[in-house]
Amino acid sequence: MNIKMIFSTVGKVVLIEAVLLLLPFITACVYTEWWVAVSFAITIGIALSVYGLSKLFFRPKNTVIYSKEGLIIVAFAWLIVSCIGCLPFIISGDIPYFFDAYFETVSGFTTTGSSILSDVESMSRGCLLWRSFTHWIGGMGVLVFVMAVTGKNTDRSIHILRAEMPGPTVDKIVPRAKDTAKILYLIYIVMTLAVVVLLLCGGMPLFDSLLHAFGTAGTGGFGVKNDGIAGYNAYCQWVIAIFMFLFGVNFNLYYLILIGKIKNVLKSGELWAYVTIVFLSVAFITGNTLAICGNFADALRASAFQVSSIISTTGFSTVNFNEWPTLSKSILLILMLIGGCAGSTAGGFKVSRVVLLSKSIKREFKKVLHPRNESVVKSNGKRVEEKTISGVFSYLSIYVTCMIVIFLLISFEPFSLETNISAVVSCFNNIGPGFDAVGPTSNFSAYSPFTKVILSFAMLLGRLEIYPLLLTFLPSTWIKR
Amino acid sequence: MNIKMIFSTVGKVVLIEAVLLLLPFITACVYTEWWVAVSFAITIGIALSVYGLSKLFFRPKNTVIYSKEGLIIVAFAWLIVSCIGCLPFIISGDIPYFFDAYFETVSGFTTTGSSILSDVESMSRGCLLWRSFTHWIGGMGVLVFVMAVTGKNTDRSIHILRAEMPGPTVDKIVPRAKDTAKILYLIYIVMTLAVVVLLLCGGMPLFDSLLHAFGTAGTGGFGVKNDGIAGYNAYCQWVIAIFMFLFGVNFNLYYLILIGKIKNVLKSGELWAYVTIVFLSVAFITGNTLAICGNFADALRASAFQVSSIISTTGFSTVNFNEWPTLSKSILLILMLIGGCAGSTAGGFKVSRVVLLSKSIKREFKKVLHPRNESVVKSNGKRVEEKTISGVFSYLSIYVTCMIVIFLLISFEPFSLETNISAVVSCFNNIGPGFDAVGPTSNFSAYSPFTKVILSFAMLLGRLEIYPLLLTFLPSTWIKR
Repeated sequence: MNIKMIFSTVGKVVLIEAVLLLLPFITACVYTEWWVAVSFAITIGIALSVYGLSKLFFRPKNTVIYSKEGLIIVAFAWLIVSCIGCLPFIISGDIPYFFDAYFETVSGFTTTGSSILSDVESMSRGCLLWRSFTHWIGGMGVLVFVMAVTGKNTDRSIHILRAEMPGPTVDKIVPRAKDTAKILYLIYIVMTLAVVVLLLCGGMPLFDSLLHAFGTAGTGGFGVKNDGIAGYNAYCQWVIAIFMFLFGVNFNLYYLILIGKIKNVLKSGELWAYVTIVFLSVAFITGNTLAICGNFADALRASAFQVSSIISTTGFSTVNFNEWPTLSKSILLILMLIGGCAGSTAGGFKVSRVVLLSKSIKREFKKVLHPRNESVVKSNGKRVEEKTISGVFSYLSIYVTCMIVIFLLISFEPFSLETNISAVVSCFNNIGPGFDAVGPTSNFSAYSPFTKVILSFAMLLGRLEIYPLLLTFLPSTWIKR
Repeated sequence: MNIKMIFSTVGKVVLIEAVLLLLPFITACVYTEWWVAVSFAITIGIALSVYGLSKLFFRPKNTVIYSKEGLIIVAFAWLIVSCIGCLPFIISGDIPYFFDAYFETVSGFTTTGSSILSDVESMSRGCLLWRSFTHWIGGMGVLVFVMAVTGKNTDRSIHILRAEMPGPTVDKIVPRAKDTAKILYLIYIVMTLAVVVLLLCGGMPLFDSLLHAFGTAGTGGFGVKNDGIAGYNAYCQWVIAIFMFLFGVNFNLYYLILIGKIKNVLKSGELWAYVTIVFLSVAFITGNTLAICGNFADALRASAFQVSSIISTTGFSTVNFNEWPTLSKSILLILMLIGGCAGSTAGGFKVSRVVLLSKSIKREFKKVLHPRNESVVKSNGKRVEEKTISGVFSYLSIYVTCMIVIFLLISFEPFSLETNISAVVSCFNNIGPGFDAVGPTSNFSAYSPFTKVILSFAMLLGRLEIYPLLLTFLPSTWIKR
């Protein structure tokens, strides 16, 4: 175990966080929120000290790391970045309690968007910006930064990337991981700017546009108004709905479009499955909520927005879907579990895994019928390795087991089963709101500190796809054999 | 595909059903319920005609069948036996509508115990007995009869047994399947009689004792009183609680006790896991419901009864656990998913699979940490084959997928998410009651005929462990290649 390298890398991540904290610091200064600016300055100071200490105590002689170290770096980075990230909320007094502030920050960095705030509008501008900015930072993974900035060793970077990138497989777009990260980040920035510009065109104020663009790009879901996106005009709602959908798509496909390989994009089974699921869900929910919404245009907009928001694991809302009929709520609950495409900023089980799972299940049945015939699972025309198939089965098993354990841990709370189940599903899949007492018009503040810690852990577990975090807490990871 | 052999075997199962229908027929005569007796007589006539027709049209020249035919026989047998079994309810007028009667009968044969009846006490004695008797018949599987009676070819019987027996592996107790079935059935009958005698000692009337013994032995859960077991004394409640627990244990262990191999019994990892889960659940729920129950003895009895009832997938109740605190309800919900031991009359995912799953998940983590080391999963001291491990992962994946699809199909109903989720979990795992609108004091009558059909299918799917039923409905099973 290369402990020096682990802490030295985590130290670099904290340094990057210090740099990123300048944005809310400047915002606070612009809005003359001096005390808030001071709390950001203090936090930046603390972050720099942590970096300095890591520099002082952990000078790695050997920079080679393996997948084990990669996983641990990712886990520690997210834990420590969240610890430092919550300080401005506490110091400024916007979220005075540690567990609340930590929950909110983890929810931000993991692009979940579950909140403990009942009155967002009373928050300072600086903290509001930082809150949404964490989504944007978390969206593509804190460590893609590290790689782009410090990654000299390709192999090492890939180890971190594997642990970090959402989805079952990371296709290397270009041979060098550093370049891959740069391309993905460029697409990310351009698309975010597109959202800002389009929202400005719709008459949304700059501050709101920027923050909603952060929330949309990171598929996070923190807003700036108490009623979410409901107060903005239909145009703005459509812009956000469409971009939430787009940020749930595998970014590799955008790169393929950029280099003109549109045929390859259309061959993506995952994309078709994603589009089909969204289309069917919108159709069913529109029909189901027609009576509530009054007219077709409103029903279509509300359902398209909510479907796009949930499947991309963003969590913005324009209506209180907790009051929708059971059919619509059930569809949303299942969309929560599915999540977006692999290689996007979305969380969840991922559409690619759902596609692979359904093909593999079909194959299992074939095996029972014709035990002697060998049958092959294909994806995008290529044969899928047996290792990948059994990987999906075992991932689903671990995924379900984790949710059940978390559900049991938070069941000490006196809320309804619907509340607790949806809270677990929502946090673990990085959505944001759930149903009943944690519905879109409510928040997570009523939960106890213990449950807030568990749910924060659930968000991290889901965001990092289980392995990095759980392995870091297993004793056998640390014991030398 | 040996279609003649399939229908000829199913015909024999129907003949056995005709014989078994004599018991409720005699009961109706004894209680001078003449019209009920006539409806049983008509049903017996229909069953005999079906058998006659199968004899006439399907004379198999070739009696060899393979696993494919075995699966189809099991699926058809359960479907047709339920179709015939619901006739007395309809003809006698006790349950006038087909979908209700079919739901009730499938619930009986699958040992689920979900009911559409709001007033059980108004039912005729003959129908009440038949209703509980279906549990007892279903408990060990209709086809174990067939095997014991008609099984000449060992290989063939094993194929049917594989499809029928609950749990991941069927250990052959003795080399010949026919003998295995006889031993299991003897244990089953003796234990059922023990329940009857012990309940009689507690002052329960003979009729009630017999029916509750059927419900307990088959881990079914149909009762004879509107308030379930609540009206009986503490002694009777404890007897039923203990025997529900015992019927959830792998029957092979009882055989091992019979032949004096008690050491082997104590080595069973599944048994220890089962006992531990029950013990912990009872401890937590007793503590959690102490305030509601008033005193420790009542709380202990109520929680032991409900835990035993749910984990053995019986579904009897002494209290309205729908009003219990969330922690207790959450534990019960998870117990519903776990179910009893493999090789018992219980349904659910099975404790043996849970044990294997947790070991396999641990191994998956080890693999990530030490990709080059080969690590082995052991069960009862023996190495578990890789095929078995991947089988558990894929079974869980299919199991979860089935539940999600069924949940989506019944979400057209205007009930709460809690009602629908628990209805699916309860039916699919053959428990009986769920929560909220399908809680222990409510029933499934409010659901639409469509949902009743879906839930009946869910009960069969769960009881037969998915494969037989789904494969029978796949077109590729029937198309020759």
